[in-house]
Amino acid sequence: MSDGVLAEVLRGDRVESRHGGRAVVVDAAGRVVWSMGDVAAAVYPRSTVKALLALPLVETGTASRLNLSDDELALACASHNGEAAHAETAARMLSRVGRDVGCLECGTHWPTLDSAARELAAEGKAASPLHNNCSGKHAGMICVACDQGIDPTGYISPDHPVQQAATAVLAEMTGAAHEDAMRGIDGCSMPTYAIPLTALARGFARFGGGVGLHPDRAAAASRLRAAVAAAPFMVAGSGRFDTVLMRHFGERLFCKMGAEGVMVAALPQLGLGFALKADDGGNRAVEVALAALLRRFGGDVLQEADHAVLDGLAHQTLRNWNGLTVGAIRAAVPDR
Amino acid sequence: MSDGVLAEVLRGDRVESRHGGRAVVVDAAGRVVWSMGDVAAAVYPRSTVKALLALPLVETGTASRLNLSDDELALACASHNGEAAHAETAARMLSRVGRDVGCLECGTHWPTLDSAARELAAEGKAASPLHNNCSGKHAGMICVACDQGIDPTGYISPDHPVQQAATAVLAEMTGAAHEDAMRGIDGCSMPTYAIPLTALARGFARFGGGVGLHPDRAAAASRLRAAVAAAPFMVAGSGRFDTVLMRHFGERLFCKMGAEGVMVAALPQLGLGFALKADDGGNRAVEVALAALLRRFGGDVLQEADHAVLDGLAHQTLRNWNGLTVGAIRAAVPDR
Repeated sequence: MSDGVLAEVLRGDRVESRHGGRAVVVDAAGRVVWSMGDVAAAVYPRSTVKALLALPLVETGTASRLNLSDDELALACASHNGEAAHAETAARMLSRVGRDVGCLECGTHWPTLDSAARELAAEGKAASPLHNNCSGKHAGMICVACDQGIDPTGYISPDHPVQQAATAVLAEMTGAAHEDAMRGIDGCSMPTYAIPLTALARGFARFGGGVGLHPDRAAAASRLRAAVAAAPFMVAGSGRFDTVLMRHFGERLFCKMGAEGVMVAALPQLGLGFALKADDGGNRAVEVALAALLRRFGGDVLQEADHAVLDGLAHQTLRNWNGLTVGAIRAAVPDR
Repeated sequence: MSDGVLAEVLRGDRVESRHGGRAVVVDAAGRVVWSMGDVAAAVYPRSTVKALLALPLVETGTASRLNLSDDELALACASHNGEAAHAETAARMLSRVGRDVGCLECGTHWPTLDSAARELAAEGKAASPLHNNCSGKHAGMICVACDQGIDPTGYISPDHPVQQAATAVLAEMTGAAHEDAMRGIDGCSMPTYAIPLTALARGFARFGGGVGLHPDRAAAASRLRAAVAAAPFMVAGSGRFDTVLMRHFGERLFCKMGAEGVMVAALPQLGLGFALKADDGGNRAVEVALAALLRRFGGDVLQEADHAVLDGLAHQTLRNWNGLTVGAIRAAVPDR
């Protein structure tokens, strides 16, 4: 069924579970440097493309006019934990265009970080759309609409001008057609278009390295990467892989997780883009696999301390509720 | 890599993720009726065998002497949500032998049901080992030890007499050797022994139908099945697959989920035993796949209303945070 093994989960020294999947690395020219499995097949990128969807926020000049901070730009690219700082930042973005939580069309869920959900409950508060992990992406689109004098109502619809502009950027960045027939509905009700995994990787090679982009777009990508590097907590949150990795690497690395086991990354200095998809949708698999692929393809970008960080993320010890070591999760893709 | 497809996850009408795995159905004589994939390979049964581990609780006479209720016996077989009733029932089991939460060696985690965790937090309370999803299994073993005058301390160790007795029952019921070399440590710190998937199914064919068992053991299995059927909430909890299925079927069906995508079931009237393992550890896959296999092999046990319930569980609509239909999860194993 599967195209290869991304990661293995061990209990003791026995493999208990394994995750099949696909992965591809492309260079600045869009050439495939390495791949595993059917990387021409279309996958839903889900939240991996949030930074691409945020490009209009910068390109239109909205971010400058509203004086959006690094925190706010990073949150526009985020699948966040719903921690207090995330919800507050989303509210601040909305307030910059005179709007509030009532404008969000993402739906409500409790913070994905369990401890944040419990803290909220302990304070006698309820979850709101601000806690939805996509609230920053939604707030960003509302900012673009309002700043341009467009009614944001219905911004989640494929027909809304702000959504159409964002979809056009996705098509330009990835080089893949974004047709109605390839459209699914995401967890937050925005469209998500199935595209080849190679196209997804190509989009992030460009987002990272800027090769072939109009200078305005390259500048917008650079601004978003700088924001995320300055505020890696905002893009995910406490304990999250994306935050841990980007906090360590700063502007040398961009990465983003998506639901159902999708992952993208860019090494801007090398112009490389990465895209991975776990066949079964298991996010734990693409985390360890990406760490191994970064180890292998990071070249001169990697310093001594980086190797240790990546090795630790590519092979993680699993402990149980008593803190006993019970097993491990390790990448099955080549790491050197 | 994989042996076959258990389940597919769709977004729109496009397959977004798929789960490979293995499954086997055996009859009362232990013969394989149907199988998919390498069912001779050893898998960790994890929590699927809790009802077998609870057999000594009944066989030793401990359950009768302590006058354990259906709720308490069902909790001994449970991976529960940590809802208030679960934690209270675990505490009551311990109190029957003059013990309390301090005796539990399972470790602490917050209730696995998010809303139960938030309720606890909202009351200003903290999680305790009583909320650990395995607390009933642990309390059951402590009851056996204390009732027999054995110090329960260290009951989670493979060397403790109560643990050794439980392991011997596993070996007898499944027909599989439970050797030290096959032992892993479970999330709650008890041992879990890797055995062939066919042996696991055989254990539950016997647990359900009683064929080939000593009359005392058959009676103990029958008592536990009756308890679980009478108190299906205790074995899992609100919204959980095991609870939903057994609440509907009563004594006509036994099923139990285990971590990392393991599932067992029995149809006592037919003497059939089922065991499934998702290669990637995805529990959602074995739920829908079991529903399909029950549909196919349920024979005369199934009435009109049962078909509708099983069809609904084998093909479930997925909705997003706004309640929009975004896709489905459906079994890929044959359902008729």
